[in-house]
Amino acid sequence: MSLLVVGSVAFDAIETPHGKVDRTLGGAASYFSLAASHFSPVRLVGIVGDDFTAKDESVFRGRRIDLSGLERVPGKSFFWAGRYNLNMNERTTLATELNVFADFNPTLPPSYCNSPFIFLGNIDPTLQRSVLKQVRCKPKAIGLDTMNYWIERTSAELRETLKHIQILMINDDETRQLSGEHNLFRAAKHIFKMGPRTLIIKRGEHGAIMVHNDFVFSVPAYPLEEVHDPTGAGDSFAGGFMGYLASAGKVNDRTLRNAMVYGSVLGSFAVERFGVERLTKLNRAEITARARRFSKLTSFKL
Amino acid sequence: MSLLVVGSVAFDAIETPHGKVDRTLGGAASYFSLAASHFSPVRLVGIVGDDFTAKDESVFRGRRIDLSGLERVPGKSFFWAGRYNLNMNERTTLATELNVFADFNPTLPPSYCNSPFIFLGNIDPTLQRSVLKQVRCKPKAIGLDTMNYWIERTSAELRETLKHIQILMINDDETRQLSGEHNLFRAAKHIFKMGPRTLIIKRGEHGAIMVHNDFVFSVPAYPLEEVHDPTGAGDSFAGGFMGYLASAGKVNDRTLRNAMVYGSVLGSFAVERFGVERLTKLNRAEITARARRFSKLTSFKL
Repeated sequence: MSLLVVGSVAFDAIETPHGKVDRTLGGAASYFSLAASHFSPVRLVGIVGDDFTAKDESVFRGRRIDLSGLERVPGKSFFWAGRYNLNMNERTTLATELNVFADFNPTLPPSYCNSPFIFLGNIDPTLQRSVLKQVRCKPKAIGLDTMNYWIERTSAELRETLKHIQILMINDDETRQLSGEHNLFRAAKHIFKMGPRTLIIKRGEHGAIMVHNDFVFSVPAYPLEEVHDPTGAGDSFAGGFMGYLASAGKVNDRTLRNAMVYGSVLGSFAVERFGVERLTKLNRAEITARARRFSKLTSFKL
Repeated sequence: MSLLVVGSVAFDAIETPHGKVDRTLGGAASYFSLAASHFSPVRLVGIVGDDFTAKDESVFRGRRIDLSGLERVPGKSFFWAGRYNLNMNERTTLATELNVFADFNPTLPPSYCNSPFIFLGNIDPTLQRSVLKQVRCKPKAIGLDTMNYWIERTSAELRETLKHIQILMINDDETRQLSGEHNLFRAAKHIFKMGPRTLIIKRGEHGAIMVHNDFVFSVPAYPLEEVHDPTGAGDSFAGGFMGYLASAGKVNDRTLRNAMVYGSVLGSFAVERFGVERLTKLNRAEITARARRFSKLTSFKL
């Protein structure tokens, strides 16, 4: 089934101990779409400037990624520059230039309005809600990402948007900030009262936890001896998660657990190379093999 | 099979947001023994002062814990005082009084010298080795815990001791410090060259990872909404791990995985109450039920 995603399409300048790139395709919606497209057709909603060339666009071509919702306007695309420390557990943002993204007002092409699966990337909660208002058929599942900036500055707007979504995908700190609770399992109970039925807490090198009604599911990070570029790991996780869910076509205990595994698989591939490179050179056999290795990583027989 | 443990038996003063105790039985060997005794007979090697009363001793009585290796000398027992912050993710040590522990020179009763499973708690690596020298039959498995203090100050002695052990059980920071490698999986390769065949990295609220030859196994922390006292969680993990292994009587892929689960189970029970209280009021049915819940927490079917 189709999966709609709204979020940033950007250019990134990235420096890690393994190298440096001055301009590479980035942005949450780019990582998300490339990861998700391995599982299901993706409909992208975003905005770019006239510096977004046919060559940049070609990264999405030949995949199941519909770009009819990618708005092109005069000006420069969103630009982000960051540098990771030696151990890649900390990063310094060197530049954030919103450019055309500052005036983003997502408009869905008519063909997108029946999307059964939706992911609202980390943008202004008012814009996230405006996307939902344009969807005509009731979706099967809506996922949402947000961050400290929106939790702090647009709390009422975010609360309103959360009423309409089922799956919230954030990190430890955001979970604590949004709920006002340090303990993550008590935090989940608070958050469930706001609307979501499923909370996914992304914990980077510590994996991810899902709290869903009465069960908790935990998936570790894949053991990698070498990480080249952590940029986009969380967005690739979200893409793998939602992409798998859309391909399964239904949300239940089993599909949610598998979605967590495929999210982790895509996140682990993303960091093996700079930018989106690894996601574009990935095949289904590699994905399946790594998902099976997650099973070996966690299974035991009492 | 019998499990020998050497380590501290102490009195603790503990303050957490859930309460305060001025004097409660503590020390790594106490938590370890109480946790392990749910699985196998334990032989404790330690030292206490004449402030260790019959009432203190009664905590160990009626369990499979042999105290003939617990030396009693004039003076005060090891005393530790600590305070946890509101979120219990940080603690301040208020006092560490080694007292009689400062002159500890472990001597094994003759009945201990054939112990097939051994755990060398976090003490001077020279003393850890002196325990091994007193063991006559070749043990099936030797586990070891250590800390930054010994890694920094007695590096050569620790390296010598590590040559003789199979299972190293430390935390993230200690793994990085000992190996000089930030990446934990590369760190494991370094550590395997020092002697151990199995590295268990304890990560507190993030669970634990085991690296053993060619496989990695990961177990999450049990989802608890309320932690009363984190003291002894790592020692209870070690006790559950080694106790299960001793009860299984052999070390292989399957028993090591299950040992990780039982370690996590015992660690999760320990923190539910102050000091060792929960470990003393635990029955086998509760342990089995929680181990099964770990399976639900991590299992999926692709």
